[in-house]
Amino acid sequence: MPPTLRRYLPILDWGSRYDRRTLESDALAAVIVTIMLIPQSLAYALLAGLPAEMGLYASILPLVAYAVFGTSRALAVGPVAVVSLMTAAAIGNLGLTDPGAIALAAVTLAFLSGLFLTAMGLFRLGFIANFLSHPVIAGFITASGILIAASQLKHILGVEASGHNLLETLSHLLGNLGRTNLWTLIIGVSSIVFLFWVRKGLKPRLLKAGINPRLADVLTKAGPVGAVVVTTLFTWIFGLADRGVAIVGDVPRGLPPLTAPSFDPGMWAALVGSAILISIIGFVESVSVAQTLAAKRRQRIDPNQELIGLGTSNIAASISGGYPVTGGFARSVVNFDAGAETPAAGAFTAIGILLAALLLTPLIYFLPKATLAATIIVAVLSLVDFTVVKQAWRFSRADFFAVGATILLTLGMGVEAGVSAGVALSIFLHLYKTSRPHIAELGLVPGTHHFRNILRHDVETDPKVLTLRVDESLYFANARFLEDYIYDRVVGECALEHVVLNFPAVNEVDLSALESLESILHRLKDMGIHLHLSEVKGPVMDRLKRSHFLEEMNGRVFLSQYDAWMALSDQGATARAAE
Amino acid sequence: MPPTLRRYLPILDWGSRYDRRTLESDALAAVIVTIMLIPQSLAYALLAGLPAEMGLYASILPLVAYAVFGTSRALAVGPVAVVSLMTAAAIGNLGLTDPGAIALAAVTLAFLSGLFLTAMGLFRLGFIANFLSHPVIAGFITASGILIAASQLKHILGVEASGHNLLETLSHLLGNLGRTNLWTLIIGVSSIVFLFWVRKGLKPRLLKAGINPRLADVLTKAGPVGAVVVTTLFTWIFGLADRGVAIVGDVPRGLPPLTAPSFDPGMWAALVGSAILISIIGFVESVSVAQTLAAKRRQRIDPNQELIGLGTSNIAASISGGYPVTGGFARSVVNFDAGAETPAAGAFTAIGILLAALLLTPLIYFLPKATLAATIIVAVLSLVDFTVVKQAWRFSRADFFAVGATILLTLGMGVEAGVSAGVALSIFLHLYKTSRPHIAELGLVPGTHHFRNILRHDVETDPKVLTLRVDESLYFANARFLEDYIYDRVVGECALEHVVLNFPAVNEVDLSALESLESILHRLKDMGIHLHLSEVKGPVMDRLKRSHFLEEMNGRVFLSQYDAWMALSDQGATARAAE
Repeated sequence: MPPTLRRYLPILDWGSRYDRRTLESDALAAVIVTIMLIPQSLAYALLAGLPAEMGLYASILPLVAYAVFGTSRALAVGPVAVVSLMTAAAIGNLGLTDPGAIALAAVTLAFLSGLFLTAMGLFRLGFIANFLSHPVIAGFITASGILIAASQLKHILGVEASGHNLLETLSHLLGNLGRTNLWTLIIGVSSIVFLFWVRKGLKPRLLKAGINPRLADVLTKAGPVGAVVVTTLFTWIFGLADRGVAIVGDVPRGLPPLTAPSFDPGMWAALVGSAILISIIGFVESVSVAQTLAAKRRQRIDPNQELIGLGTSNIAASISGGYPVTGGFARSVVNFDAGAETPAAGAFTAIGILLAALLLTPLIYFLPKATLAATIIVAVLSLVDFTVVKQAWRFSRADFFAVGATILLTLGMGVEAGVSAGVALSIFLHLYKTSRPHIAELGLVPGTHHFRNILRHDVETDPKVLTLRVDESLYFANARFLEDYIYDRVVGECALEHVVLNFPAVNEVDLSALESLESILHRLKDMGIHLHLSEVKGPVMDRLKRSHFLEEMNGRVFLSQYDAWMALSDQGATARAAE
Repeated sequence: MPPTLRRYLPILDWGSRYDRRTLESDALAAVIVTIMLIPQSLAYALLAGLPAEMGLYASILPLVAYAVFGTSRALAVGPVAVVSLMTAAAIGNLGLTDPGAIALAAVTLAFLSGLFLTAMGLFRLGFIANFLSHPVIAGFITASGILIAASQLKHILGVEASGHNLLETLSHLLGNLGRTNLWTLIIGVSSIVFLFWVRKGLKPRLLKAGINPRLADVLTKAGPVGAVVVTTLFTWIFGLADRGVAIVGDVPRGLPPLTAPSFDPGMWAALVGSAILISIIGFVESVSVAQTLAAKRRQRIDPNQELIGLGTSNIAASISGGYPVTGGFARSVVNFDAGAETPAAGAFTAIGILLAALLLTPLIYFLPKATLAATIIVAVLSLVDFTVVKQAWRFSRADFFAVGATILLTLGMGVEAGVSAGVALSIFLHLYKTSRPHIAELGLVPGTHHFRNILRHDVETDPKVLTLRVDESLYFANARFLEDYIYDRVVGECALEHVVLNFPAVNEVDLSALESLESILHRLKDMGIHLHLSEVKGPVMDRLKRSHFLEEMNGRVFLSQYDAWMALSDQGATARAAE
């Protein structure tokens, strides 16, 4: 089998070694994940502003595609909270009202996202995800969690409220507070309380009661299903739908439909920016879960193949009535803990959801939306984590600024503005920091060959020689800074004969920086001052040799700063004379 | 006088020392610049797709504003070729046809650009201009020169042609070649030949004929005026306007009109992106000319005050019927060479142009557009310079790629796409380069305290100790790379007990990189391997102390790599035992 095929189809690799024991592990994990995924699929579709069945459809074929193309043994793909929120924002931008048009937009968004991810994978551009800084992602996820929880409060209260940002949502909500539906509120609040209790209190009690830990685990994960069953029965029996409790209603029963994305250029143009953001955020979340879980079993994943796995999953979603999917954090951890050993667990989960779509949909007619909102709220509040803010504040102001801006902009202006601003800001702050490099003036530590900052150490200097250590690679953003720094420093120094630039920390010199070095050289030449370099790294020296700079230099390149000092300073001359 | 006032109003500084001798120098320079600027103003307005008089208006009040707020002694502000081309592109985006609406858009563009520049200056954001790499700017200017020259060919041939990119323009031109107007072609080509001859051949001849060098200079600069006078007379006398030669026609006579920009939010939204690009490109061009000229006289300019100077000039343009202006390269050099000593020279030039607007406009009724096109072509061809491409090719592939993409995109997709792509690409390539830092595995050079790359040098190593020197600051874009590198390197090394990260070239560790260091630490701990650091710089150490990383470390921080080697390696242990 050609190795390329094996790389692009990881299923050929693990599939050839698949046995009965692996099958059993995968199947058990699939049962637990299916139980967790049914209410989540319905709930996240609601969050995305789509009909509930689209959540189920997004949990069938995409999982099969990932099983074929994905590399993570534990990643559970499907609808997730943040991507659902971003889908809602993207489709909201289009201002559609017709349900058919909204569904078409969702399918198209999944298709564009799938194309983009697959293309990134094929061109091996997975590294681009590294350009998102961790604090920006952490801040974005936290803010999204708050936005999502806030957006679900209307379902808990049973009122109308909408808004693209936190203030809008909350003020709509407050304005409509008087119209709260009491039955809805009772269902919503008791579901939240029950689900929190299941999370925190149930498992210890079950274990105490002597129940097998594995079963205790399954029962805990089944909490949302329990809430769904109980509240649906309750609503049905007491006829609460007639008392204003919003219910899921008619969910079509059957196989996922065959769908096709729109190929209207106008819709593509309107969705492509959102699709790129959704893809990148989805990929970053997914790959970090996958890597964390792989490392626990000393396995490795291939980020570029992951892109292809997620890309084909989204394309699969687009042809089967779904919407954008990615690897979910909580669900993947559950899958891993439940013992999933291969991506086949995902395919088995798909069978579970397919059965649900075929058999269970009539049963959820009376499922209150408040229950689904409660499962979302309880799930996303675990995303909200402000420790990154505290950590950034302590560690570095630039990181704090980036994470703070991301959170505030996401809350205040919505997910797309928030994450775009966060990425742009973290790149800008990095450029800004490196645009004003630390430059230290050096002197010789007496009795040694070491040179240190004259401001921090008691060192020997010579008015004839100015030694500057540049603590940054030189490139376009800081080239001018070095120029200005040297002119300011040199002006009025009448005794000065030599400027030595000490380059041990200069890892790179680009063409802009070369031009700046050349203009520094010409300016110093005009002043009758010699420019020298010392401790230039191999790659930088190779680079300089490809220009005329070294030929034009009126000074020398010294291997060590000590050599420069011995050759140029009065002290060095005295020492040489004494030899 | 408060120093702040003096900073924001440089005129208070040089104005207080103004004397008769300075006045004479400035006035003479102003005469020469005026002679040069009259045809240029008309021509660049034509290039910007605006009526000729707007060029004159843009050369009056803006120059006075710069004289009050600018810091450069030699910068000659006014309409320039590249900014005029960008203005044409920006207004072209709006798809306007009504001349009044076009003029309003031009005035609004100048206003937005003025606001942006002034705000950048007040917030002292001049350093942002450094984020444009020199090769990208050089490539952009070269490509713009070609685009401008190509756009003027239609006037030389006397045919219709339009297009936002080179191919479009040239193919329109070829399609209409059969409709060439012979008289227009004769005027255009002979003007071009004449102007080139004036540039290259006139001055030496005048000097040889014993004419005073200063006068020879003025006569050379008057070349375009000569071409204008001769071709206008020629067109008038032979009635060529009736034979299809396009003429400037009626140019209103009088003072610049009082105008106001549009405050329509839709127009602002449509123009703000272009205004920002025009501002930044204009500022970068202008400040680099100003700095070059200031350095020749050992003066300095303040980039942030320059922003205010250019910003107020553009606001002045917007209230007096002009369009975006900036400091012109050729014109400023002429101003400098002619002896301008203060910004007052600009104000005197403004008087000269004002007189032209009051008195000369009726005389240019028969001025052929072909003559103006010829002056543009001859002027911009000096902008076209491909040496930067050659230099970049030799010096660094990344720079070559950025400059090549900028040139091709500017030619193929227009100025705005070209320069935006160039900026984005140079930032991306910088991030990309630093995202895969050079990591060297080190060994001890026998008999010394020095450590070198094991691949390049014959050095001592110890299978128990892995020493890695990271040749880059650690930040979000490369944090994951280091993680992956270390895992790949460590896997399967059974004898390994210590990993030492040698940090002399690490100038910065951000929060993302800290998280990566923490996960490297935890992973190595799990494997029973100790993680050590050596030669950590002061600022990086200060930063690490603000986190829990150092407390959690299972290894040590060594001041020098040699200390680490002595403490950890077998060779070190033997040496210690022998002492």
